[in-house]
Amino acid sequence: MEVYQKTNILLDPSGDTFHRAVGITLQGGQIFGLFPVSGILNKNSNKIRFRWISIKVLYYFYIFIFQTIHLMLSLRRVVRVEMSFGVFAAVFFYFVTLIGGFIIFQKAKNWLKIVKRIELTEKIFLHPPYRQVGFSMRRKVRLVTLILLIGGVAEHMMYFSTKFINAKAQLEKCNLQLPVLEHFLKTERRHLFSILPYNTVLALLFEWSNICITICWSYMDVFISLFTCSMAYRFRQITDRMKRARFQTMPDSFWIEIRSHFTDLTNLLNYLDKQLASLIIIACGNNLYFICQQLFNSFEVTSDALNAAYFLVSLMYIICRTLTMLFFAASVNEAAKEPYQMLKALPYTSWSTEIQRFSDQLISEVIGFSGNRFFFITRTLILALIGTIVTYELVLLDHITEPPEIIQNSCYIAYLNAHHEANWTA
Amino acid sequence: MEVYQKTNILLDPSGDTFHRAVGITLQGGQIFGLFPVSGILNKNSNKIRFRWISIKVLYYFYIFIFQTIHLMLSLRRVVRVEMSFGVFAAVFFYFVTLIGGFIIFQKAKNWLKIVKRIELTEKIFLHPPYRQVGFSMRRKVRLVTLILLIGGVAEHMMYFSTKFINAKAQLEKCNLQLPVLEHFLKTERRHLFSILPYNTVLALLFEWSNICITICWSYMDVFISLFTCSMAYRFRQITDRMKRARFQTMPDSFWIEIRSHFTDLTNLLNYLDKQLASLIIIACGNNLYFICQQLFNSFEVTSDALNAAYFLVSLMYIICRTLTMLFFAASVNEAAKEPYQMLKALPYTSWSTEIQRFSDQLISEVIGFSGNRFFFITRTLILALIGTIVTYELVLLDHITEPPEIIQNSCYIAYLNAHHEANWTA
Amino acid sequence: MEVYQKTNILLDPSGDTFHRAVGITLQGGQIFGLFPVSGILNKNSNKIRFRWISIKVLYYFYIFIFQTIHLMLSLRRVVRVEMSFGVFAAVFFYFVTLIGGFIIFQKAKNWLKIVKRIELTEKIFLHPPYRQVGFSMRRKVRLVTLILLIGGVAEHMMYFSTKFINAKAQLEKCNLQLPVLEHFLKTERRHLFSILPYNTVLALLFEWSNICITICWSYMDVFISLFTCSMAYRFRQITDRMKRARFQTMPDSFWIEIRSHFTDLTNLLNYLDKQLASLIIIACGNNLYFICQQLFNSFEVTSDALNAAYFLVSLMYIICRTLTMLFFAASVNEAAKEPYQMLKALPYTSWSTEIQRFSDQLISEVIGFSGNRFFFITRTLILALIGTIVTYELVLLDHITEPPEIIQNSCYIAYLNAHHEANWTA
Amino acid sequence: MEVYQKTNILLDPSGDTFHRAVGITLQGGQIFGLFPVSGILNKNSNKIRFRWISIKVLYYFYIFIFQTIHLMLSLRRVVRVEMSFGVFAAVFFYFVTLIGGFIIFQKAKNWLKIVKRIELTEKIFLHPPYRQVGFSMRRKVRLVTLILLIGGVAEHMMYFSTKFINAKAQLEKCNLQLPVLEHFLKTERRHLFSILPYNTVLALLFEWSNICITICWSYMDVFISLFTCSMAYRFRQITDRMKRARFQTMPDSFWIEIRSHFTDLTNLLNYLDKQLASLIIIACGNNLYFICQQLFNSFEVTSDALNAAYFLVSLMYIICRTLTMLFFAASVNEAAKEPYQMLKALPYTSWSTEIQRFSDQLISEVIGFSGNRFFFITRTLILALIGTIVTYELVLLDHITEPPEIIQNSCYIAYLNAHHEANWTA
Repeated sequence: MEVYQKTNILLDPSGDTFHRAVGITLQGGQIFGLFPVSGILNKNSNKIRFRWISIKVLYYFYIFIFQTIHLMLSLRRVVRVEMSFGVFAAVFFYFVTLIGGFIIFQKAKNWLKIVKRIELTEKIFLHPPYRQVGFSMRRKVRLVTLILLIGGVAEHMMYFSTKFINAKAQLEKCNLQLPVLEHFLKTERRHLFSILPYNTVLALLFEWSNICITICWSYMDVFISLFTCSMAYRFRQITDRMKRARFQTMPDSFWIEIRSHFTDLTNLLNYLDKQLASLIIIACGNNLYFICQQLFNSFEVTSDALNAAYFLVSLMYIICRTLTMLFFAASVNEAAKEPYQMLKALPYTSWSTEIQRFSDQLISEVIGFSGNRFFFITRTLILALIGTIVTYELVLLDHITEPPEIIQNSCYIAYLNAHHEANWTA
Repeated sequence: MEVYQKTNILLDPSGDTFHRAVGITLQGGQIFGLFPVSGILNKNSNKIRFRWISIKVLYYFYIFIFQTIHLMLSLRRVVRVEMSFGVFAAVFFYFVTLIGGFIIFQKAKNWLKIVKRIELTEKIFLHPPYRQVGFSMRRKVRLVTLILLIGGVAEHMMYFSTKFINAKAQLEKCNLQLPVLEHFLKTERRHLFSILPYNTVLALLFEWSNICITICWSYMDVFISLFTCSMAYRFRQITDRMKRARFQTMPDSFWIEIRSHFTDLTNLLNYLDKQLASLIIIACGNNLYFICQQLFNSFEVTSDALNAAYFLVSLMYIICRTLTMLFFAASVNEAAKEPYQMLKALPYTSWSTEIQRFSDQLISEVIGFSGNRFFFITRTLILALIGTIVTYELVLLDHITEPPEIIQNSCYIAYLNAHHEANWTA
Repeated sequence: MEVYQKTNILLDPSGDTFHRAVGITLQGGQIFGLFPVSGILNKNSNKIRFRWISIKVLYYFYIFIFQTIHLMLSLRRVVRVEMSFGVFAAVFFYFVTLIGGFIIFQKAKNWLKIVKRIELTEKIFLHPPYRQVGFSMRRKVRLVTLILLIGGVAEHMMYFSTKFINAKAQLEKCNLQLPVLEHFLKTERRHLFSILPYNTVLALLFEWSNICITICWSYMDVFISLFTCSMAYRFRQITDRMKRARFQTMPDSFWIEIRSHFTDLTNLLNYLDKQLASLIIIACGNNLYFICQQLFNSFEVTSDALNAAYFLVSLMYIICRTLTMLFFAASVNEAAKEPYQMLKALPYTSWSTEIQRFSDQLISEVIGFSGNRFFFITRTLILALIGTIVTYELVLLDHITEPPEIIQNSCYIAYLNAHHEANWTA
Repeated sequence: MEVYQKTNILLDPSGDTFHRAVGITLQGGQIFGLFPVSGILNKNSNKIRFRWISIKVLYYFYIFIFQTIHLMLSLRRVVRVEMSFGVFAAVFFYFVTLIGGFIIFQKAKNWLKIVKRIELTEKIFLHPPYRQVGFSMRRKVRLVTLILLIGGVAEHMMYFSTKFINAKAQLEKCNLQLPVLEHFLKTERRHLFSILPYNTVLALLFEWSNICITICWSYMDVFISLFTCSMAYRFRQITDRMKRARFQTMPDSFWIEIRSHFTDLTNLLNYLDKQLASLIIIACGNNLYFICQQLFNSFEVTSDALNAAYFLVSLMYIICRTLTMLFFAASVNEAAKEPYQMLKALPYTSWSTEIQRFSDQLISEVIGFSGNRFFFITRTLILALIGTIVTYELVLLDHITEPPEIIQNSCYIAYLNAHHEANWTA
């Protein structure tokens, strides 16, 4: 007999599900046009609806179209005006977020199916003998993803403050009589306004789409963490159950059940891995690229304390976000390896063919999220990524002559630049 | 009892064979002097004949001899005139295609034996309980390889258009009264005509050999894909059969048969892997080298839109071709790992020693095509190759001072160059 | 029956324990404010006491606070005065030792618990059938760690001699009338005394804290070796017992016991690995960084024989220390793989399920110390580290323009420097 | 019953042993002072004798002492005169050969013991059911190692011819009245004769020691190949026996014997691996270093055809030698994996626990020669080495400003150099 009778933690059967854990975070994304699905906050997952004709989808398409314009115009800038690492980063940024946003949109379309598939396996773990391990899954998932999301918003707000103060300072320095907002937008979104005529409404629409894009850029990691975090929790529940049975002689049926549940969970994992494959690759590439880029920029010393502070915060944020995402993804792999330690400790009397099978299964495969099976996200991978980043930094160190800072310090250059572009477009 | 009685897809027993799948693609190669074997389009594989005394072999030898001259003269150019990355690429190109073409010729010699060996194993999979998975193998193999082959021809035709227009423009610019063809050949095949006297017939013979060589350069990947594509299909057929039996309790004899068929298939794979070993190494090295070379060239901006467009198409083509080849090769590995997922799901009641053996066999070896066992072509390898290319690009970035463009933009340089060489050869 | 009756090596049951082996080395660390625990030299491990209110803890906190000041001021120097590899190394040095010292302090707090956990498993190996393998563990552990520790002290004393002679020579050259000590401290601890007013007592306090920090820098490796060395010994004891039983047919109970002991030992290893995780990462990063840094510096030729000699000794010391630490950590992995060789040699008559389990267990996991499972310390890792160092050296070779030597050769630069800083701080 | 009765290849029982296979190659080494053991050509391995007081050992010590002088003086040259990659290569050369020669000397001391240990296992494979696979082992080992050895001698003779012709040409050009030999030695062995007075007898003694050292430099690879070549042969004999029994149902005793023989062979392999550990590391490091060095030198174009030809031959020789050594070492690993393919094909009727054990054993360990278990010499390693060499070449490409050629083309530089050194030594 198992020991679960002794545990007095009762689970709300409808409670600690994936659907209810992720609702609030997905809702958060909807503010920025991501994940246009309704019913995600409803306790009942059957209420999930995706409608092509809805405000949310419309909102998404507005972002999508403006994003495409951003991409096209910054690509044009690279080809026509200047080919530098800084400008190329902008193209990469718009490209990655366009793809990433679209993948998330596709997941939204199939959300009901995905949630149903998860609940199919999940329902096993909502009742005893399985029990809550530490905090409830709901709390864990919410905590992690909301912190990441709020961090992203905060970072972007700091960006605005910094750039506004910069723009203001420059205007004063150059004695220009422009509204700060206009000057700011003209400088920072030069890829747009060197072609399009400046118009406050249009400019604000573009700016809001840009904000949504930036959030989407962080949201990819957040979205992945929703899944990794909850899968790791389920594996830990199995280990927890085995831990309690460790020193007892359990009947064969116990081990048959455990192995069956474990196999169900890995099947779910494989399903989700396939669903997230392209998003994981995009997110990892994205993070790798921007960390390299930002670290590389860090070799340029700015005397300006404000910009330096923003730069540092921004760099820290992207590193933290990446590490959080990777660690939670790797924690699935760690959690899935734990049961093996339990099996090792079993006395020879309880050893059976089924346990042998379980044991073989645990050691023969890498169980965890992967980037479409090109790489498996494990702890070792994280180290390899760090090593790659260090190596690339060293190699890049003397190759790149940096493009002039995006914020022009001298008034002269600003006008020269404008002139130059006018010639090109002419 | 197996469920195959229920399937109403009847296979034409003589139908979906390797021999019939590859015929049309091999025939396509024969236009360019590759694979001089007759009977490859005949339904009956016994009609395959390789004759030393035949037009096809003669044709091959014409290409082979002219190829050797190309190689020798471009090698001479490297040693005597200029040692640059651009010119070295030409030597490498002729060297790789010479070897590659010769290996394909050798396979042609033994083609009957190879096809017979494949059919020995293949016949198991032509009848129920095995059935067609998705499209028929014939269609898949043809689709993939013909697209690659036609892509190669198209890319080369675009090359001709571009270079002809270039040559014409240059002639006009410099007010020269040469036929365009002659000027084009003298500029582009400088390694030949700085030594040999220009003669239209000879020049056209050389040019045709050069076309064949370029097709051969793509054909190596096509040829490999013929095998990988069909092997992956066979492995998928086994998985398909297991998938249908997954939830039933099958007799031991079922598993003994499945394992036996799987082992037969891996034996065939090992046989083909040995046959293709050197070709795979050559093809991978070739692709790695030219992608690095072309990516590196991409850092040089050409203002000319036409040349830029051709360059981009050419780069895209080689990347797509390489990825297609690698993905199909890696898909064998992926398909061969699939059965393990079925075995995991088996209930304990059907577990037996034979299944244990099968399971051990699946996880203990890397099953797939390899480069003579130096490397196994898996998804992980593809990532490693991409990583290597990125690293090399970064390292190369500031090392190489590019040679002058092959198409001389200035009339002055063209004449100077000619003069210079005359001195050398004198 | 086992053969242990024949062995006449009697073990002192209370004797060859971890607690008694490490006492003297830990005591050595206490001279430098590390590991503030009392009772570590007592034969009885129950006498271990950590008291918050004690001289030792107070001593530690003095070091800790001064260390923080060192860190802050050298960080300030990097930001405000000069950003060079040399100065950054100082920041890294203070940062790593601060963290390292703090981790060791935390282990001190839990020392009683750790020792008790070790003794729980250890007591099995103190009695026959287990016996002493080679020297006693106590002697081995002491020998290794004391040599490392004394080496560290010797290296630092050589540092002082060299720098004093340098300071003296410079004073004479520049005709300055300062005490040698003051000049030495002002030059070498410039990050302090460009801000703080010079005061002999304070200076000496800072200098002593600096000495303790330097010892702590070596002590991390020493501390890790205490554990690795003793764990490797225990694994070797199991192999030794198996070796004696190799050619006999042992009862099943023998193999059940052996496997159970082995599993206990790996559990202890996992426990210690978790305890040391962060320290191992810090120590490896530290060593990797400083070897790269020092090797890089070695490309600068100093004409001064004394400085060159010190530099060489210092480089040798850090390389030897790192390799010793890594080799002892890797030896755990090597020792834990040994039993497999014994199992292979067993005749088929004694083969049983339990031995099969043992065999599977031995080959399926990497048993050994790891850096929080990011990397496992094995022989292969050591090679990979050496490869990484070589690669980084090659890449760094032409990137870095070295900062001016810390010891200023010219009097002019010294004064200029001081002036420069005064301006900054003003 | 096994099929060996049918084979009519009778083995001379005392015949195809390791001892008799290696005699002639070892004898070849003795000409150059290596391996001072007598009795190695005697059919009876008991006649092997190592005597401290013998001409051979004396000869070795003459080489050893002169080698040490070479090392010291070239080290002095690096420190005092010039620090360049070219001169450092000389130091590395003398250092590696000194160590390598000494390790081979130590093996000579224990040769009787080593041969006896090999014969202990070897005697199983001299009688049926084992039989000769392809050529006899004796012929294979002799062929491979003698070709390598003769290649080394030939390469060095070509070196002499080239350098002599160079020296002669230079003398004529500069109108100097020196004997060619003296001029040659003074130029090529500058590290000696810038300190020691020139004396024909001493110079010849030094030159002969230098020849022996160069042979020793190649001999390390030859020596390793003796062992790898014969071990691979033994593993192939096991596979051969299994291949014959593949389609029969063999009794359990057959598989027990096969596994036992295989285990004996891996034990012998482990023994030899320990014996050769340091030599393999030294040889691999040596080859890696010199291939990098030579490839790097190849970027310098020499207009002189003779020197270019010698350089090419020399580069080819070292690459071929290295690849031969590595391939034979890797072939042990390949041969030891073969039996697994046989086991896979076994019908379920003959499957037994012992075969299961054998199968587990084959897939769980890397069986092959290793560099003290830091790396295992497999095919994959060879690819990794090639990748490392390519990467290092790319990285080195722009770092190193080459030292002036060792052969001075201008008379002026020769005298200037001499003068320069005189100043240093003064």
